[in-house]
Amino acid sequence: MKAPAKLELGDFLPYLTNRVGMIVAEQFGNDALAEHGLSIAMWRVMAVLASRGSQRQIDLADLTSIEVSTLSRLITRLIRKGLVTRTRSINSNREVTVKLSPKGQSLVNHLIPIALDFEAAAIAGLSVKDIAVLKRCLRHMYGNMKKRSAATGGRGHGTSS
Amino acid sequence: MKAPAKLELGDFLPYLTNRVGMIVAEQFGNDALAEHGLSIAMWRVMAVLASRGSQRQIDLADLTSIEVSTLSRLITRLIRKGLVTRTRSINSNREVTVKLSPKGQSLVNHLIPIALDFEAAAIAGLSVKDIAVLKRCLRHMYGNMKKRSAATGGRGHGTSS
Repeated sequence: MKAPAKLELGDFLPYLTNRVGMIVAEQFGNDALAEHGLSIAMWRVMAVLASRGSQRQIDLADLTSIEVSTLSRLITRLIRKGLVTRTRSINSNREVTVKLSPKGQSLVNHLIPIALDFEAAAIAGLSVKDIAVLKRCLRHMYGNMKKRSAATGGRGHGTSS
Repeated sequence: MKAPAKLELGDFLPYLTNRVGMIVAEQFGNDALAEHGLSIAMWRVMAVLASRGSQRQIDLADLTSIEVSTLSRLITRLIRKGLVTRTRSINSNREVTVKLSPKGQSLVNHLIPIALDFEAAAIAGLSVKDIAVLKRCLRHMYGNMKKRSAATGGRGHGTSS
C-alpha cells in the first residue's frame, strides 16, 4: 500500500497566493472601500472603466476576471449607487455599454492613490526584478487555470444562464 | 491641479494575485471540496492537521492564516461533520486542541493528491527558479501586510471577541 501523500500548507502555492490576495483585498476593502459601500469586485469594475473608458459588458468581464452573470448584478448595484450608467447600443439591443458617471469618476479618482499605496505597502522591499518575475508568474498561473477551466468544460465558471 | 492618478488593473499586483488565488480556490473548491461540503478554509485546517498533527486552536489560526473567531466556527462545523475532534487541555481550560478523526484523516488522504495536481496544473511551465522567486515574493508580501495590519491596529483582522 502506498503511503498517503504529504502536503505542507506553508509551501503550497495555492495557499501562499490566496492568503496574499485575501489579506490585501481585506485591508483595502475595510480601510478604503467599505465606507463607500463597495466590494473589491465593484472597485475592479470602476478601476477598469477609469483607465479604459466605457466598455461593453462582455469586455468588462474579461478585463476584471469577473464572470458575466456576477458582473451584471454588480453593475446593477453600481447603477443604483449612481456610480456607473449602462446603455444599450443602437446597433444591437443585446450589446450593453457601461461607463462611469461623474460621481463614479470622482470616487475612483479618490480611490486610485489609496490603492497604489496598498500595492506599494505590499511589495515594499522587493526588487524590481523580483516584481517582474512575480507578475509574469501570476499571469502565467492565471492563464494555466483559465485553460484548465476551458478544457474541463468550465465547471465552476458558470457562463450558462 | 494635479492630474488624477492612473491605475492599470492588468498591471496591479493586488489584482494579479487575487485573481490567481480565487481561480485556483474556485476550481479546487468546485471539483474536489464541494461534494464533501468543505470550504477552502475547512480544507486548510484539515491539511495542516494532517501534516502537523493535533494543534492548539491558536496555533491553527497562525498556520492557516484564518482569523481566530472564524476558525472557531469552522472547527464547530468540522466537528459536526465528524472530521475533527476538539478537546480542552487538562492543564488549562482555555487551551483547546484540535485533531483529525479517522474519517477526517481518510478524507484528507483522498484530497491531498488532488490538491497537489491543482498546484502542478497552476505552475506548469514555470521554472524551478521562477517558482522559488514567486514563493519568496508571496511570503514577503504577506509579511508586509501582516505588519501593516498590526501597525494600523489590526483593522479588519478582528481578533476582538
